[in-house]
Amino acid sequence: MVDKMVSVIFQPNNQSIEIPLGETILTAAKKAGIILNIPCGEHGKCGKCVVLVLSGKITKKGIFHEKIFTQEELDQGYCLACQTKVKGNAKVYVPNESIVTNQKILVKCVGSEIKINPSIKQIIVNIAPPKNYSNLSDMDRLLAELNKHYSESKISIPFALLQKLPQLLRENNWKVEVTLESIVQGFVEVSEISKVKNQELLGLAIDIGTTTIAINLLKLSTGEIIDTTTAINSQMIYGEDVITRIHFASSSEQNLKKIQELLINDINNLIKGFSVDSNDIKAVSISGNTVMSHLLLKVNPSYIWKEPYTPVFRHLPKIKASKLGLNIASSAFVYILPCVSSYVGGDIVSNMLLSELHLKEKPSMLVDIGTNGEIVLGCSSWILSCSVPAGPALEGAEVQCGMRAAVGAIEKVSLDYLSLDPVFSVIGEGKPTGICGSGLVDILAELFRANVLTKAGRLKMGGNRRIRKGEHGLEYLLLEGSETQTGKDIILTEYDISNLLKTKGAFYAGYLILLKSFGLSFDDLDSFYVSGGFGNNLNIKASITIGLFPDIPHERIKFLGNGSLGGARIALLSREKQIEAEELSRTVTNIELSNNYEFMDEYTLASFIPHTNLELFPTIELLVKKGGIKN
Amino acid sequence: MVDKMVSVIFQPNNQSIEIPLGETILTAAKKAGIILNIPCGEHGKCGKCVVLVLSGKITKKGIFHEKIFTQEELDQGYCLACQTKVKGNAKVYVPNESIVTNQKILVKCVGSEIKINPSIKQIIVNIAPPKNYSNLSDMDRLLAELNKHYSESKISIPFALLQKLPQLLRENNWKVEVTLESIVQGFVEVSEISKVKNQELLGLAIDIGTTTIAINLLKLSTGEIIDTTTAINSQMIYGEDVITRIHFASSSEQNLKKIQELLINDINNLIKGFSVDSNDIKAVSISGNTVMSHLLLKVNPSYIWKEPYTPVFRHLPKIKASKLGLNIASSAFVYILPCVSSYVGGDIVSNMLLSELHLKEKPSMLVDIGTNGEIVLGCSSWILSCSVPAGPALEGAEVQCGMRAAVGAIEKVSLDYLSLDPVFSVIGEGKPTGICGSGLVDILAELFRANVLTKAGRLKMGGNRRIRKGEHGLEYLLLEGSETQTGKDIILTEYDISNLLKTKGAFYAGYLILLKSFGLSFDDLDSFYVSGGFGNNLNIKASITIGLFPDIPHERIKFLGNGSLGGARIALLSREKQIEAEELSRTVTNIELSNNYEFMDEYTLASFIPHTNLELFPTIELLVKKGGIKN
Repeated sequence: MVDKMVSVIFQPNNQSIEIPLGETILTAAKKAGIILNIPCGEHGKCGKCVVLVLSGKITKKGIFHEKIFTQEELDQGYCLACQTKVKGNAKVYVPNESIVTNQKILVKCVGSEIKINPSIKQIIVNIAPPKNYSNLSDMDRLLAELNKHYSESKISIPFALLQKLPQLLRENNWKVEVTLESIVQGFVEVSEISKVKNQELLGLAIDIGTTTIAINLLKLSTGEIIDTTTAINSQMIYGEDVITRIHFASSSEQNLKKIQELLINDINNLIKGFSVDSNDIKAVSISGNTVMSHLLLKVNPSYIWKEPYTPVFRHLPKIKASKLGLNIASSAFVYILPCVSSYVGGDIVSNMLLSELHLKEKPSMLVDIGTNGEIVLGCSSWILSCSVPAGPALEGAEVQCGMRAAVGAIEKVSLDYLSLDPVFSVIGEGKPTGICGSGLVDILAELFRANVLTKAGRLKMGGNRRIRKGEHGLEYLLLEGSETQTGKDIILTEYDISNLLKTKGAFYAGYLILLKSFGLSFDDLDSFYVSGGFGNNLNIKASITIGLFPDIPHERIKFLGNGSLGGARIALLSREKQIEAEELSRTVTNIELSNNYEFMDEYTLASFIPHTNLELFPTIELLVKKGGIKN
Repeated sequence: MVDKMVSVIFQPNNQSIEIPLGETILTAAKKAGIILNIPCGEHGKCGKCVVLVLSGKITKKGIFHEKIFTQEELDQGYCLACQTKVKGNAKVYVPNESIVTNQKILVKCVGSEIKINPSIKQIIVNIAPPKNYSNLSDMDRLLAELNKHYSESKISIPFALLQKLPQLLRENNWKVEVTLESIVQGFVEVSEISKVKNQELLGLAIDIGTTTIAINLLKLSTGEIIDTTTAINSQMIYGEDVITRIHFASSSEQNLKKIQELLINDINNLIKGFSVDSNDIKAVSISGNTVMSHLLLKVNPSYIWKEPYTPVFRHLPKIKASKLGLNIASSAFVYILPCVSSYVGGDIVSNMLLSELHLKEKPSMLVDIGTNGEIVLGCSSWILSCSVPAGPALEGAEVQCGMRAAVGAIEKVSLDYLSLDPVFSVIGEGKPTGICGSGLVDILAELFRANVLTKAGRLKMGGNRRIRKGEHGLEYLLLEGSETQTGKDIILTEYDISNLLKTKGAFYAGYLILLKSFGLSFDDLDSFYVSGGFGNNLNIKASITIGLFPDIPHERIKFLGNGSLGGARIALLSREKQIEAEELSRTVTNIELSNNYEFMDEYTLASFIPHTNLELFPTIELLVKKGGIKN
């Protein structure tokens, strides 16, 4: 029996889609290409996929509708897309704040001085035409010229180019333009032979994030960025974090194919947007975490997630772009930044390249703050890494009014320490919808400094209307419904605070585990690099106050920006840096924390503001001793 | 306007084919897959493509019918296939002697002791399953094991195998069978990963001759030849020699494709004949002359033929069999024996491998006798080569009663020095049709020793009925029409003799040019290797007598047999020998003779029996001085 189909029309964009009767609104949205927030993994818990049913028969399932909505809202037609089945043709309005696509995507990163020497080369060769008394073949003559540029590498000419070679050489009077790519160390492949065109070589640096994709289009000769473009990773429709992505991709060959194609389509769509002929794009460098790299190559990522967390590959020879389905020059090769381990991926290697941590004599630390946090500690003679299961609190999940750094998010907050009235800034125009990570850190720090939040994360009642009893214990009222987009109060509950402290505690415990391995302290660090879109927005003082950052002189804390994109750019522009990246992926020692008891202890100690051991936070200790903060 | 089509039915096999009205019988034969003798290149001169028109309207063109046939034969319907146009539906009988397919194909060669170590390896790897605290990916673990076998090479795993890797390793408890191929020096590619099957690896050694194809099917572990098969190279329908083949292939992209496909089809048909699963064939080694190698790869061979005779390639990395269209394991790689120059091809490199000339301290000479003769002189410290434009006389063309070494050919002859009556042997059963090269050499030598042939190649009239005046001067009557298959006399004319002397003179001049380059004489040679199907049948004494072979002790003259096939076998079984072959192709110094005046001088001096300078032939000089031969 064929499923009965019903149509769902999404407003405000009037997208119409058909789904089998009984499927959820979320399924319809996925089909329509609308990426709704589902940080809880479609369980109905987080209440971020709110939609308004304008017409049509629906049935709500699960237990969360009553918890999340008021009766009035339910009557109006508000519901959770993931928990609502469509039982007849329906018309559904999708509020802006439920959509992922308004996310702020960071593309900038710190500068890096590199010697431009891309692994792709275009060489104009002038070949001495053959004379008598020489055995040399056309290929020998060409190789002899090319070898002048690659004295220590084997150069190979693919069969298909060989078939065109004799004509090409003679038609162009033995002067041709040859494009070559260093595939692995010591091995170079000719990718194109043509008449001399002297065209600018273009390349793409791509950062494939779990949530977002960012691409730089560059001139390979100068490193100049011609254009930059970003998108939400369409794989988001199958879950917001890598674990749900892995589950989906591992469940069938077909799903793996589907999820790869989504990614390739996203990239191809972004490429379409550039105002250049995509056939002129001859090189690509891609940076992503280990799971994204696996999905990009349609390699089953399931063992990354299962103990003992084994990736299928870490470093790869270059792959033809055409084999991946990328719509650029068919001769182009793709370089994929190598991974260190299942949870320390090519994006972290990229960040290392950008920070040049591995070139410095004095150790530095690097942290990438996301759902999973990755931490690197090292210098020119050794490097350690670990990943910490931080949870998504800082990305707005598991926090009632939390949200990603998208339009409507409160991203910076300071409080009047008496009234607790906030001064804040919002992303985009219009009223705020929620609070993103940097805002949450600010609020925590300010509440602590205002002496209304204990070391253990409990709010102090009394004397201030903004601290009140809520449904689940005490809460801080940041904004009243009248001031917000949704008409609801924006609050921070003790439960939220507890989640945030767990997250920041995991990071800090990670820092300490790495430092202890080498008997170092934060004072020994040359720099503390913070990478990623989220990290980039953090207020240093606030982050130190709550114990997310170590208490070191501010000038030693350096924001890398989108270091994954930056590193991809570096690798695109420098063959030497590609080799450095390969070496990094091999030499970094990864410490697995998931069964590490010492980590668990440190984690417990660190889940306080700023830490149980105040000696680790001298500036905060001073403040407490002075009596500025009483706990 | 569409061409009007007519049908031609070929007897005795009743093959029916349609061709446009006005095309030749030869065209129809080609379409029917019947390979007729056309040594003169379809000019009507040689008279070897005789057919009998049983019914149908035809028109004969050209001037050769009257010269070749008697009026009676013409009345019966005999004609030249290449010079006869079909003007209506016809029925044509093809005599056996006009067909190439009865050719004797040599597959044997001298033995060679090599250490069996094929460039393809099948390794069973036992991988330690991943544990915690290790970053190693599946690929890293596999590579670590494989590297134990390839300590000095880069091993690459193709993308497609990587996608299967995680499943394969886990399903087979981390014990898998890996097949690897050494692609170029220092670079190994994994071609298969599977559960442990412990299957015998099979390989093909292929000799692609201009006329014939020979294949050995071998067990790669032991070198045992399981089966051997041969065929006529179907490209023969587009001309018998490489030059006509080059013309055809260069005339259009389509023709190049067509001529490659013929070759691939021939090989695939031969493979079909083996009683093994062709998917178990995992390695191929192919030896052929430079033109055949180019055609095999669908690479335009036209510049080989045009001054300054430049091949497109000499050595190549290995190519996937599937890319060539060979129906064997899709993972199999093809190794192509490298060439030295446009006219010293992979077949000669094969012969060198077999002779081990390049490993000996004392110089040896190697000659491959065919339409083009290739000569090599060298030792472990240096090697020279040249090719001589010998002409096809020794292959039976340009000699009135000459033919290839096929069924019906007289291959050995001795004469009674008084009566000049011959004692002879014929290939196959039945009456003789003509004389092949070895027979021609025998007759020349015997006539000379019988004192009825001068040094200059003139027959002496008088005293013997077998030496008589013919249409074009004197001729020797070997057999009367009553004793032959065709009913015509088998004779050798002075014109034939002149052509034969030119041919053998070219070889001898080539030997001398190479020797002189290093100030050597024949006495300095360790061995004089004779290669190829034709050479193999030669009588040493007779060949010395006419000056085709140098006058050295017989035991130093060694027949290699089908050294092209033998060398392909050696390369198939030994990676070290493949590397030796590559080095040979680079280090051999080729001397181009086409504009060499010294060669022209030597050629003139050598076109006598045995030579103008009798001192070069001491045993013959002795005979002359004793008065045994008077000139």
